[in-house]
Amino acid sequence: METIPDINKDFPGWYQFVTLKAELADYGPVKGTMIHRPYGYSIWKQFQTILDKMITDDGVEDAYFPLFIPYSYLTKEKEHVEGFSPEVAVVTKAGGEELEEPVVVRPTSETIMYKSFANWIHSYRDLPLKINQWANVVRWEKRTVLYLRTSEFLWQEGHTAHVSREEALEEMRKALLRYDNFYRTYLAIPTMRGTKTKDERFAGAEVTTSIEILLKSGKALQAATSHMLGQNFAKAFEIQFLDQNNTAQHVWQTSWGLSTRSLGGLIGVHGDEKGLVLPPMVAPIQVVIIPVHKATDDVIDLKRYVEGIEKMLNGVGIRYKTDWRDETPGWKFNNWELKGVPIRIEIGPKEVEKDELTVVTRISGQRAVLKKNPEVYKQIEELLSSIQAELFQKANAFLERSIVDIRNEKELAEAVTSDKYIYRLFFDDNSEKMKYLQDTYKITPRVIPDDRANDKGPDFLTGKEGVITLFAKAY
Amino acid sequence: METIPDINKDFPGWYQFVTLKAELADYGPVKGTMIHRPYGYSIWKQFQTILDKMITDDGVEDAYFPLFIPYSYLTKEKEHVEGFSPEVAVVTKAGGEELEEPVVVRPTSETIMYKSFANWIHSYRDLPLKINQWANVVRWEKRTVLYLRTSEFLWQEGHTAHVSREEALEEMRKALLRYDNFYRTYLAIPTMRGTKTKDERFAGAEVTTSIEILLKSGKALQAATSHMLGQNFAKAFEIQFLDQNNTAQHVWQTSWGLSTRSLGGLIGVHGDEKGLVLPPMVAPIQVVIIPVHKATDDVIDLKRYVEGIEKMLNGVGIRYKTDWRDETPGWKFNNWELKGVPIRIEIGPKEVEKDELTVVTRISGQRAVLKKNPEVYKQIEELLSSIQAELFQKANAFLERSIVDIRNEKELAEAVTSDKYIYRLFFDDNSEKMKYLQDTYKITPRVIPDDRANDKGPDFLTGKEGVITLFAKAY
Repeated sequence: METIPDINKDFPGWYQFVTLKAELADYGPVKGTMIHRPYGYSIWKQFQTILDKMITDDGVEDAYFPLFIPYSYLTKEKEHVEGFSPEVAVVTKAGGEELEEPVVVRPTSETIMYKSFANWIHSYRDLPLKINQWANVVRWEKRTVLYLRTSEFLWQEGHTAHVSREEALEEMRKALLRYDNFYRTYLAIPTMRGTKTKDERFAGAEVTTSIEILLKSGKALQAATSHMLGQNFAKAFEIQFLDQNNTAQHVWQTSWGLSTRSLGGLIGVHGDEKGLVLPPMVAPIQVVIIPVHKATDDVIDLKRYVEGIEKMLNGVGIRYKTDWRDETPGWKFNNWELKGVPIRIEIGPKEVEKDELTVVTRISGQRAVLKKNPEVYKQIEELLSSIQAELFQKANAFLERSIVDIRNEKELAEAVTSDKYIYRLFFDDNSEKMKYLQDTYKITPRVIPDDRANDKGPDFLTGKEGVITLFAKAY
Repeated sequence: METIPDINKDFPGWYQFVTLKAELADYGPVKGTMIHRPYGYSIWKQFQTILDKMITDDGVEDAYFPLFIPYSYLTKEKEHVEGFSPEVAVVTKAGGEELEEPVVVRPTSETIMYKSFANWIHSYRDLPLKINQWANVVRWEKRTVLYLRTSEFLWQEGHTAHVSREEALEEMRKALLRYDNFYRTYLAIPTMRGTKTKDERFAGAEVTTSIEILLKSGKALQAATSHMLGQNFAKAFEIQFLDQNNTAQHVWQTSWGLSTRSLGGLIGVHGDEKGLVLPPMVAPIQVVIIPVHKATDDVIDLKRYVEGIEKMLNGVGIRYKTDWRDETPGWKFNNWELKGVPIRIEIGPKEVEKDELTVVTRISGQRAVLKKNPEVYKQIEELLSSIQAELFQKANAFLERSIVDIRNEKELAEAVTSDKYIYRLFFDDNSEKMKYLQDTYKITPRVIPDDRANDKGPDFLTGKEGVITLFAKAY
């Protein structure tokens, strides 16, 4: 087996190694594309199941709009086309002929959905309209970082229309909190939640909010976004409704999305020197059972014993897999550690004889020998819960000790070469200064954090009034 | 409300009306594309849940491969490229530049998947390899029939690799039977299951099998296919494994798929003069509760009574919806009949007073007044089961009385203008005669039915030995 690169010295090498060798993903043949292998895809399926329930429980309905968008649609909202034009893929030939109007492969679906919204919405009774779609989208990339930067990615995109600005803002906020809950509760990932500065807004939005997370590389990842689009698209696509006074009004809109980038976040937040580490709540395999025996051993009793454990786990809905492959136990231990399975159960002749289970956790390597009584699953469930909590705590401790308050440029210059990764400072949202910080220190504004949104003070460079803003290097 | 076209006199008009007005789907802006609206998409979600479980229970793993395929991949298997070239969409520009090698938007994923299969398969221990993918695919169409003929459609495509021809044939057969079970059990649709004649084979396959169903239009629909690809792609993509004697061998492969066309089949098989008719097992809403009251009535008691029923249905997992919209009960009855909901429960002051439920079935309009005791859900469950069974029986009776045995061309000429739609005859799989039948009678060979596969006799035109083959007009 090849050696895994050191996560602390070569994060990009480590990240690529783990993603490929844990069989999460592979490179596609067309530049920028990737293959979601079964193991990686099964994690995405967990994400989908959890998020889809959260979204539809809030009254949003799933639908599916076409992949192809007429180029003219994209141009209807001025900022939107400026933002997306440089990265779209364009179909110019189809069915053996040149197309009269080229079509764009969707980079996002605002324009195609809102054309339908204009047809479907007539009166205030048709509002709010709340649609979500699970789909592939394309934004052309020259270099690939599996999950984090790919030409095609999978995501869900929610799109809603409302009678008022207030209602739209509330929906934007609700979607953001949903993502926040998803990351913190299910992925055990602490978040920086807040509002984007003006230059980091989505193309066509009035307000952009986001969830940012910190990977072990020391770089931040924009992990989900939620936008309040104002009436920009409503005016471009003529989405109007008659209000209760029979007056025609434009709707107020939101859009919000979470993509397969989140998997890259999961790898980079929890992974360690042995490979992937999966939080139990989203691990497709929560427990791997490894029979420990010599190739020449009679395994009849062992098989029967293992089947008893499988039956018990199955009965309580613990997701397990037994590895009977023709490899050594040691090879299997490494392999499942690389794949990040939270708990390993070792069963050998000793365990069978004593009616026990040897349980080892991925996160700390802690071993415990449990009596195989009919209630032992409870101990396993408790262990899974405590692993979930421990992962969050570890990630949160790393995030908290990575944040530093910056009062002047000297402090910043020192901080960017230290083990501090998140720079908290007063910023007056000045585009020129932002550019300067990006060029000089490779850092960009991530968010104005929700919990400090009213915290004002003099900009650390200009002295003008600014608000607390988090800066970091980012993917 | 506009009048629904007569299903017997104008099936295409009826089909389009129902699909649009039941809010299943809409036309997309780019020719040939369609929008899956929430109600239609929720049916597809039911299909996905059922099929994905069937597929993964059989040891197939879900994955996701890129949308974009290098054009050169498509050309590696000669028949495959001939079959698909005329209908592919081609991206020639991306990221603001002309691409060096144009990329094809996947029409199907054999070529891109099998390139990876070649990388992943080394030894007989890596086999069988069984992958499934849920994805959108594109095959350019000039005219759109919602669901039945669209440029972009949604589907699942299964792809497997095996050590031997026998094992691949068995897998092909297993996938076909899965589809057969899906149609018959869940969609209440009787099937014609069998093998395709040579000119109807999938481009690159050695054997193609399919499920064919009969719509009320009198036209057959190819409702799912399963192919045994032989070693054609294995040779084109160099997919080799070392067998137990350490000899390099090419794998044997299958591929199989079911798409959103199936929704068109569902509409066309069960629909009636009032609109859509959904089988209870796949209906997103199995029971609609309609409160019957005057606009001026006090509805406090009614609301409380309805909540009791909702709680009961919810507790046993019956999918229901209560329609409190500000419309007349009569309008709602029509609307939910158009949308095909299997059972309607009417609750008015009389029901509240007498502690009853008035239950009306969509399929026959049969009314029953049930006592609202805690066990009444059992009667509703039984009713849902009997509706499911009745739908299958009705569709099966129609299919059976539509089949006619044809001994000579005179009989065929008469049959094609009658109410017989499936022509069962001995056919010697002669391409020229097939072309003649298509040109003259607009009929094509659907399948050599499994249950008569060994039934041989003189071809009805040539007199040479042929096998029983089913012909029909088809979508």
